This record gives sequence, C-alpha cells and structure tokens, in this order.
Amino acid sequence: MKRIAIDAMGGENAPKAIVDGVLKVRAELPQTQFILFGDKEQLRQVIPADEINDQLKIVPTIEVINDEDEPVKAMRTKKHSSMVEAANFVKEGKADALFSLGNTGALLACGIFIIGRIKGISRPGLMPTLPAQNTDKGFNIVDVGANAKTKPEYILQWAEMASFYAEKIRDVKNPRVALLNNGAESDKGDEIHQAAYELLQKSDLNFIGNIEGNEIMTGKADVVATDGFSGNIALKSVEGMSSVLLHSLKDSLLNNGLMTKIGALMIKNAVNDLKNKYDTAVHGGAVLLGVNSPVVKTHGRSNERPIYYTLKQIDKMLDEDLVGEVKATFAK
Amino acid sequence: MKRIAIDAMGGENAPKAIVDGVLKVRAELPQTQFILFGDKEQLRQVIPADEINDQLKIVPTIEVINDEDEPVKAMRTKKHSSMVEAANFVKEGKADALFSLGNTGALLACGIFIIGRIKGISRPGLMPTLPAQNTDKGFNIVDVGANAKTKPEYILQWAEMASFYAEKIRDVKNPRVALLNNGAESDKGDEIHQAAYELLQKSDLNFIGNIEGNEIMTGKADVVATDGFSGNIALKSVEGMSSVLLHSLKDSLLNNGLMTKIGALMIKNAVNDLKNKYDTAVHGGAVLLGVNSPVVKTHGRSNERPIYYTLKQIDKMLDEDLVGEVKATFAK
Repeated sequence: MKRIAIDAMGGENAPKAIVDGVLKVRAELPQTQFILFGDKEQLRQVIPADEINDQLKIVPTIEVINDEDEPVKAMRTKKHSSMVEAANFVKEGKADALFSLGNTGALLACGIFIIGRIKGISRPGLMPTLPAQNTDKGFNIVDVGANAKTKPEYILQWAEMASFYAEKIRDVKNPRVALLNNGAESDKGDEIHQAAYELLQKSDLNFIGNIEGNEIMTGKADVVATDGFSGNIALKSVEGMSSVLLHSLKDSLLNNGLMTKIGALMIKNAVNDLKNKYDTAVHGGAVLLGVNSPVVKTHGRSNERPIYYTLKQIDKMLDEDLVGEVKATFAK
Repeated sequence: MKRIAIDAMGGENAPKAIVDGVLKVRAELPQTQFILFGDKEQLRQVIPADEINDQLKIVPTIEVINDEDEPVKAMRTKKHSSMVEAANFVKEGKADALFSLGNTGALLACGIFIIGRIKGISRPGLMPTLPAQNTDKGFNIVDVGANAKTKPEYILQWAEMASFYAEKIRDVKNPRVALLNNGAESDKGDEIHQAAYELLQKSDLNFIGNIEGNEIMTGKADVVATDGFSGNIALKSVEGMSSVLLHSLKDSLLNNGLMTKIGALMIKNAVNDLKNKYDTAVHGGAVLLGVNSPVVKTHGRSNERPIYYTLKQIDKMLDEDLVGEVKATFAK
C-alpha cells in the first residue's frame, strides 16, 4: 500500500479543504493510505466518524507552522507541528510521500533537512506544472525559488529531473527542454546561463536552446530550466499578469451598463473554455525535486479541487517510482 | 529649437509608420525639429514634398542595421547606417535626442559608445513604462536587459534615475521605489539583491521595500528597480502572459457558436476599456537611462500611434532637461 503523509493544518482552508480533497479522491485510489497530521479535535469535526479506517488515518499533532514563521527556525523548533511530524513519518519509512499547503520555505526545509537530499543531487529544486497555450499537458519550470543562488550544474540536474517527471508523470515523449534566458542566442545571459547552456547542449536531454519570458506560456518547451531567482520572478510575473487582466476584465464587464452585462452572460461558454484551458489545479502541486521521497506543495488558498488533483499526482509519482528512478540515475 | 534624430529605417513598418508618426505629432510640437535618417528614395515616397521644411528634415543614409545583426559589431561596421548616423548627429551636438525602432542591442551600443555614458553613472539601464492596474500613470521598471550582470550600485543608480523620470515626465510626486525580489523580507534574494536593498534603504529615495513578480502590474510601486537579467524575464513574462490570454480569449469567443459571437459584440465597450487600460503605447518607448542625451526605443512592430506618443515623450524629456538633471546629480 502507498502511504501519503498529509499536513492537514497548512493553508487558509485547513483542515476542512484538505479533508474534503482526501474524501473526494479516496475511492479512486483504493491502494493508497492517507495519513492526516493535525489537531485531533479540529480533524474529528470535519471527518465523519465512519470515514476513519485503514485507508484514512489521523496522527494527532499539537502545533502548526504558520506562513509568518521563519522557515528553517520553524522546522527546528516546532518539532511537534503537523508538517514536521509528517516529514518525520516519511523519513522513518512510515509514509512514502509528503504533502502540504503550508509555509513553502518550511516545507522545503523539511524536504531537504528531514527527508534528505538524494545522493548525487547538489541542490533540490522546486517545480510546478503550469498550463500552456498550445498543449493540454502544460509545462514544467524549475527551480522557481528553492534557491536564490545557482550554479550551472544545478540547472542541468533540475532539467534532468524535470525531464523524467514530464516523461513519466505527464506522459510527454522526449520532452523538449529549454533554458530561460534573456535572448535566443547561445551566448546570452551571464556566465552562469552561458555555462548552463553548454551543459544542457552536451547532455542527453532534448535541449532546444534558450527560451525567453514571453515564450514560456505558449508551450514551446515541455521543461523550462531556470535559476531559482529569475524562475521565481517569471512564475510570479505570469501569475500576477493573469490575475490583473482577469480582474480588470471582470470589472469592465460589470461597469459598462446592462447590455454589456447581458453580453457577459452570453459569452459564459467562452469564458469557461478559457478557465479550463488555464486551470492550474489539474496539474497538481509543485514538486521538490531531488529529495528522497515525493514532497509536494499546493497554494495555501486551495480548496478541495486542487488538493484532489495533487493527491492523484503524488499517487502517480509513487506508482512510477519517480524518486527511485532519479536515485538510480544520479547514483551512477 | 529641440531636435530629435530619428532612425527612420528600424522596425517592421519602416519608414512609413515612422513618417506617419512624425506627421501626426508635428503640429502639436511646433518648437521641435524632426530629423529623419534613412534611404532617400524610400523616404521621399512616403513624405509629401510639401511636408519637408525646417521642422522636418531628411538626412540620407545608405545602410540599415537589421535585427539579426550582432549589435556591437553592427554599430562599429555599419557606420553609414541610419541608426549610427543619427547617433553621431547627437554626439556632434547637431541633435538633442535619438529615437529608433531598430535592433535594441545596437541602439544600446550607439547610446553607450557613441553618445556616451554620463559621468558618475556606472552602467546605463533600459527603462520602459508599463501600464498598471491601480493607476493611469503606469510604472517604470529598470534595468530590463541592457545588462546581463549587475552590481548593487547599478541598481541604486537606475532607481535614482527612474525616480527622476517618474517625477518629471510622469508627474508622480515622491515616487514609490521597490526592489524586484523573490520575497518580501529584507534578507530575500542573493547577495546582490540583499546589498541593493540596503543601498536603497539608506538612499534619499522613497523606498518601500521588496516587490514580487505578482505585484508589479498592480501599480504598488511607481519604480521597480531590478537587475537587468530578471528584469528582462519579468518584462517578457508579463508581455507573454497577456498576449497568450488575450489570444485565447479571442479564440474562445470565435469558437463557441453564434450566441457567444453576439455576446462578444455586446461586450465591446468593456473590451475597449480593458484595451485602453493596458495600452502600452500611451506611455511611449523604453528609455536608455544614464547616457548624455535621451535615447529611446519602441517596439519594432509599432505603427504610427506608439511612435506619436514616443515623440511626445522625448519632447517632454527635452523640455524638462531630464538628462541635465541626472548629470548635475551624479557629477557631485
């Protein structure tokens, strides 16, 4: 049986949304156990008593790491928090994967320091899957913020791990890998990006060259490799732009008189198409690549829907033994 | 009389769009001379003979720098190109500002090596004005790609010059300056961003702290200071996301049956509102800050409208003597 350790206290809608996500997915994943870490009372209130059985377990914890906590300090001092206890379960072999909606930095710290780095991997990297214009499968981008400083070798390793992920989990054959840079030519960027370009070109990856910020959302590459700093800027910039545009469109539709409002109702199908196309939930959460077990994070404001998809994503990562594959490759 | 040297051969729609932009703006700027550099025959074909007078002059040139040309090499070898000849006019004091739609790298090279760096400025930086959600005045972001490598001192200088610009040209009182970073706290980012944070905080600027990628388009800051690499990624990421979303929306509106199409017509006012709100043209072109005269670039695919606004922007920069102000400040 696969076992997922779930920090049930992280995120704005905890523990209700997390429990609802688990209850929604459990019938589809009969071979998977869901271990919820959190406040016993709060969990009991949102889980019907008859739902607790071998497939759904509670491990009571007495603390919570908040978003305001300093990540590494919180991991070290809040030893009885839902997140740290869940991470320790994975470390001790009592669970196979860690899932949280809580403090991203603390989760990265739990992944790197408790669950541990895979031998041969220099630095774990954080990798979401984003929707793209020309493919339903989206694309991966790594690292988006686990590291503020980068070396060319790190970028190569992230690209290699993300390429495994794209192939095994997203079913993309021979994933196209590109390097996020400030221009198309091979000599673009600073020394780090120039050296990363060379490493990628010499590798066995299907490297298609540099990609610029305006191209990432088109789906031109299946894997976008980037240093953790500008990757973080790119990810948040596209999120911010999309949020600003959709809010402004909504405002305009509501403030242009009755005919516009009726028109807005009439284009509902088109808007739903658009929402489905750029639905981030279906791709699951961001994976911390390079640690000894799957560690996955979703947005703190998630409701049950992204949680449902993320649990399926984690389950597939366990089925495909993605971490085992990475370990075998980098042990060489 | 103010004199603007215009590379009339750069961009996809040259020279027609450039000439049309000049013809559109000239009556509004009677104290300004427009000097068009380009192929004599091509220019004659698009300029009515009676339009050529003291306010609109042609300087015939015999070469063009293309987008594919290697920037510094092109500047050095294509000495008789429209761009280089225009830059030399400015250098020699025969014009007061340089404007081009051509090869960005070559224009930066012309600005830095021909027109020259202002004494006291370490590295010129490229600064566009972008639209923002909560203000009609948009915001400035610098550097977006003139430099692949950055030092904290450069970022401070860019912020200082952009703050001047925001105050003098965009009429923003006491502009709020923020540092683009991967988190809100002062210790975020690598050493360069941590040191830049300290410099900005100690400066006389109205520094409001770090800003993340998802916040830049809201208008939270009037000036976003950034290293040239991730600034370039941020700028292109928001451009790419907005283009992808608007294209997808259009596709959805056209492919959801007749009722949706009618609805699309009925929301036209709302869509126009949105277009106006995020109209980049009205803010003019990207300014190369830190050189001895205004050097301004607009998108190569521009039609007459952005060119019209950019010429007004350059005219205002000359009226306000922005470069003189920067020179006086950094000479100290």
